Amino acid sequence: MTSPSSVPVPEPPKPGELFLAEIREQPEALLRLIEYVAEFEVAGRELAKRAPSVVRLIGHGSSDNAAVYGVYAFGLLSGLTTFRDSMSLTVYYEAPLDFSGSVIVALSQSGKTPDVVEYVRRARKGGALAIALTNDPGSELGAAAEIALPLAAGPERAVAATKTYLNQLAGLALLAGATAGQSVVGEQIRRVAELLAEAVEPLERAVARVTIPFAYVGRMFVIGRGLEFATAREIALKLTETCQIAAEPLTATALAHGPMAALDPLFPVWAIASPDETLPAVLDAARTVRKVGGTLVASGSAASQVAGADYVLPVPEAPASVLAPLLSVLPGQLFSAALAQAKGLDPDQPRGLSKVTLAP
Amino acid sequence: MTSPSSVPVPEPPKPGELFLAEIREQPEALLRLIEYVAEFEVAGRELAKRAPSVVRLIGHGSSDNAAVYGVYAFGLLSGLTTFRDSMSLTVYYEAPLDFSGSVIVALSQSGKTPDVVEYVRRARKGGALAIALTNDPGSELGAAAEIALPLAAGPERAVAATKTYLNQLAGLALLAGATAGQSVVGEQIRRVAELLAEAVEPLERAVARVTIPFAYVGRMFVIGRGLEFATAREIALKLTETCQIAAEPLTATALAHGPMAALDPLFPVWAIASPDETLPAVLDAARTVRKVGGTLVASGSAASQVAGADYVLPVPEAPASVLAPLLSVLPGQLFSAALAQAKGLDPDQPRGLSKVTLAP
Repeated sequence: MTSPSSVPVPEPPKPGELFLAEIREQPEALLRLIEYVAEFEVAGRELAKRAPSVVRLIGHGSSDNAAVYGVYAFGLLSGLTTFRDSMSLTVYYEAPLDFSGSVIVALSQSGKTPDVVEYVRRARKGGALAIALTNDPGSELGAAAEIALPLAAGPERAVAATKTYLNQLAGLALLAGATAGQSVVGEQIRRVAELLAEAVEPLERAVARVTIPFAYVGRMFVIGRGLEFATAREIALKLTETCQIAAEPLTATALAHGPMAALDPLFPVWAIASPDETLPAVLDAARTVRKVGGTLVASGSAASQVAGADYVLPVPEAPASVLAPLLSVLPGQLFSAALAQAKGLDPDQPRGLSKVTLAP
Repeated sequence: MTSPSSVPVPEPPKPGELFLAEIREQPEALLRLIEYVAEFEVAGRELAKRAPSVVRLIGHGSSDNAAVYGVYAFGLLSGLTTFRDSMSLTVYYEAPLDFSGSVIVALSQSGKTPDVVEYVRRARKGGALAIALTNDPGSELGAAAEIALPLAAGPERAVAATKTYLNQLAGLALLAGATAGQSVVGEQIRRVAELLAEAVEPLERAVARVTIPFAYVGRMFVIGRGLEFATAREIALKLTETCQIAAEPLTATALAHGPMAALDPLFPVWAIASPDETLPAVLDAARTVRKVGGTLVASGSAASQVAGADYVLPVPEAPASVLAPLLSVLPGQLFSAALAQAKGLDPDQPRGLSKVTLAP
């Protein structure tokens, strides 16, 4: 029998260590996911066979941000009408909706989120095909759905999600591609993993130089449009939960419909610029921000096109524009990690949060 | 010929005068709308005849907030699957979506918003039935749609929308009710107009007592769930555009998924509490806010049930719970008017905004 004193006591992680480690782990997490490409192809064929009139996406928090991406991934890759459904309409109000022509894609890191599970049960009772994307296909959610696809992000120990979010985007792109019989998406994600791996270190150095001026920033807008609106939402959420900044995501167009009036030099705007059809709208919004004197951070692979940006955090261009959000989120994650550290906060365990949200 | 000097020069409006006048005018604006109830019934029958697989709602800013309400109004009153569509997917990316089984409901105060007009044109080309709800049925949007329904809010002179938003909610409820052959909604809206007229004065007095402690507040969350999430979004937008507060709308559930970590005593939360199936989720979120020491404002007709609220701004209970958001928004509008005045800002003409947003 070994005496207890000889057992090495593991050092508790330093604040932010887990969060940063999981950001760095994302390229590997993507590679783990694409090992399951065959499962996604089977699920995509099942989905296509139903010829659904709509695909309904559901999730909370980061998973809901991934769902915003899913609307575009499905729309662009499969042409299927896809939207983020209201869970409360079904779970709380029990509205008499027709689910018979629907496919559900339910997103939950843990597979335990109660109203996601309840929604899936009711939608299936109404005739929907339900697919779960979760790190734990053996979870309650996995059991409630017909098909449970693995996210394969591995155990996420920091409360603020990073690698799960990225694998959710990749999983949605794989599934949407498989629905349309496009088998190229898996290889494209492999290339994204390589680009991501190369981008981490230079970006870590870049954000370290940028965070100090943000130590006393209390509020920000994060803007994107189209595919990159998901990125705007996810970066805003990371800034809010790990850095205690009131960061609101807005489409580039919504900014002009009211919120523009709140800007001042201490109210920075983060713009996500990717080289796709929505770029002119983002560049236009960024110009207006500069005109009213707002501080401007530009990220995305077209960041250099944002005229007059105060801080530029570019990423490599994705091998397909539909996959750009898998790269664009990285500067926001690393910036949040560095800023939280500068502010003495612990992104591994933000105040008042827990990993699985069991509130209904 | 009269000498120019004898023509009385109209006094320019005092800052905030137009905004407040339009808030006060809302009961009359609702009564103007229900004069068109027959037109809404015809449109509702047309909509029902199409037996659409989905109803797609589109709009920007306040109109998008009204669309959030529309998802619930249609879901609850007509049982039709309804969602806020992505305009960029169609207008920018030209995704190959099938519009043949769709009805579009397009919301625009002016009827001039370019991407709303463009979306409607493309959706019709794809086989959708398009209905426009606008203050100007003779506008470009009105011409682009098959059916143009009047909002009848009358000329809106303050840049920040109030009566147009309220009439959009009422118009969506009328249309959803008409689709299901429910003719009672018009009469219920008449009752809402009466209740609203009675509520304005006491609420004006109440907000006057509450605004001073908020003069230095820079950020807020506004929470609601289900039907009242539209109200949360609209109150947050009013606070942002007229009071320069970074006010972010969140569902009561999303608050627990991250943003909770940002709260502190100088980061108040406004909770909208209405007596429907989602109330427990809102009360639960409010309890957590109190636990972390956040300042809490409660409004809605169930405001008194929010335990430990620092400020309570109740409204009368609506004659039907689906119409509660028509009353719940009033305290937020009046609070914004009073706080803008206290801060020396002009809600009639917020910095950097114009009435019609012509940016794409």
